[in-house]
Amino acid sequence: MSLAEQVLQGNIRAAARLMRDIDDGRSQAVDELKKLYPRTGNAFIIGITGPPGAGKSTLVDQLTASFRARGKKVGVVAIDPTSPFTGGAILGDRIRMNRHSCDEGVFIRSLATRGALGGLSRSTSDVALVMDALGMDIVIIETVGVGQDEVDIVKEAHTTCVVMVPGLGDDIQAIKAGILEIGDIFVVNKADREGADRTARELSNMLDMRHAAPGNWSPKVLRTEATRCTGIEDLTDEIMAHRDFFLSSGTIDNFLRERNQRHFLGILRDDLFKKALLFIEKNANLDKIVASMCENHIDPYSAVEEIVSKMIPENTD
Amino acid sequence: MSLAEQVLQGNIRAAARLMRDIDDGRSQAVDELKKLYPRTGNAFIIGITGPPGAGKSTLVDQLTASFRARGKKVGVVAIDPTSPFTGGAILGDRIRMNRHSCDEGVFIRSLATRGALGGLSRSTSDVALVMDALGMDIVIIETVGVGQDEVDIVKEAHTTCVVMVPGLGDDIQAIKAGILEIGDIFVVNKADREGADRTARELSNMLDMRHAAPGNWSPKVLRTEATRCTGIEDLTDEIMAHRDFFLSSGTIDNFLRERNQRHFLGILRDDLFKKALLFIEKNANLDKIVASMCENHIDPYSAVEEIVSKMIPENTD
Repeated sequence: MSLAEQVLQGNIRAAARLMRDIDDGRSQAVDELKKLYPRTGNAFIIGITGPPGAGKSTLVDQLTASFRARGKKVGVVAIDPTSPFTGGAILGDRIRMNRHSCDEGVFIRSLATRGALGGLSRSTSDVALVMDALGMDIVIIETVGVGQDEVDIVKEAHTTCVVMVPGLGDDIQAIKAGILEIGDIFVVNKADREGADRTARELSNMLDMRHAAPGNWSPKVLRTEATRCTGIEDLTDEIMAHRDFFLSSGTIDNFLRERNQRHFLGILRDDLFKKALLFIEKNANLDKIVASMCENHIDPYSAVEEIVSKMIPENTD
Repeated sequence: MSLAEQVLQGNIRAAARLMRDIDDGRSQAVDELKKLYPRTGNAFIIGITGPPGAGKSTLVDQLTASFRARGKKVGVVAIDPTSPFTGGAILGDRIRMNRHSCDEGVFIRSLATRGALGGLSRSTSDVALVMDALGMDIVIIETVGVGQDEVDIVKEAHTTCVVMVPGLGDDIQAIKAGILEIGDIFVVNKADREGADRTARELSNMLDMRHAAPGNWSPKVLRTEATRCTGIEDLTDEIMAHRDFFLSSGTIDNFLRERNQRHFLGILRDDLFKKALLFIEKNANLDKIVASMCENHIDPYSAVEEIVSKMIPENTD
């Protein structure tokens, strides 16, 4: 039985192995993913994003418990920032999730933000796909909301919760118009902290100013204290409300079209690059090309043109 | 006279136009860049990176003044984060730089972090190249240190200054091993703030633990108050000291090799992707491919294989 079939039967070990193959960039992984694609689309994907220190991990942990109590199987893809400044004791937080480690209805996978060819959004969507195929009802993607790569990750989610926290920085300037477009639900976590009212009020005001068109979803601002499990049920309810809207309003059609186009173009880009690396390995010498650039004999643009013209004959261009 | 030649003669308007062409992704820009490449390599590139709110813009402004006072022409490439959470009143800060706006020896260019095909690091290095060709002695690249893209930007710099600030977050956990490898010089800015001693001491301790091999550069921790122009001259001196080390120790040879390889591979990747988009436009129909994915008739991996096999005939693979 293929890995893909095992995953579709709910085999957790097979899923873990396939994810490892994805990480390692093995070509077999692609064959398995191909088999999974038509059998997926059942999981509801929730993105949790916000600045470092907003308490996202704890919130995800509590949401996981909440969805479990409602009988849902939950997959978690946690993007661990390896960037120096995003900081926070991510690994320490991850330990808290251990309370779910004996629960077969919870599958947690961490991805590091560095290294993956094709960027993190590719690995994230592939891992989410495997969780979907494995039978997870909910897949939560947790990511620090910085950088283009992370914005792309958020696009994979059906519902995106933007987590803010009072008193991060001296003022609310950091809340820019951008996050208003990203979020379907806004969460002021650590709501017991000073400044929580102000943060929530300013968010609400900014959202009000948007004049959402009739028939559109209008995001709410919720307050949580994840460490004390306060406000979690309301958040889960609101996520489910957005899910209902998402499925009933036709939003999902646009979403799927955009997602498929993004996946297609992303895979196209990576695939061509991989082919080019193989081509260079066979027909040229990367070290020699680079040396010739170092000696100013050729510029990188011309060097690329030379390789590409050999790789792709003119008439098919 | 070509744009490239005008730039090489120090024509600022031509440089601005070429940068605009680069931004717009015009193919003529590549022809001009090709001409510039062999004529560059004279500018010394300084990377200034650190979390939002560390006062990087003010520091860059002061450094610019300091280098100007030493008779150097200075180019500044400021990466303005468009990501929602990196925040900070970037545009406000930029206004301060106006004091250099009548100075022909200063050339400032802002790049937005979103949209550029091939990512920001490509545009940044191209813009730095134009500044180099224009005759700038120093090119300062200022960027928020988050995300893979920004780490790649830092790699373009000969000398990287990591700017930290006391009291960002409750503890120093955010300072991870990663930044120790990035920085050639560490700056604790806003050094009048509470906690500055602690931040500087902890940084020094972490650096001491690295046991730099003999003959390697050992980074120092400097303290500045950029708004009051305190510590700037020392920082400039330290940058020049690192420059001397960089040039005399042979570090530059490795640096150039890595940079040329990175440029070559990055351009290769983008170029192939652009060619693929043109190919699809001529020989296929993206909307139809996406629709067929939406109807689960094909998965994106197989759809890509189909296109690529048409684009690159088997025998040249």
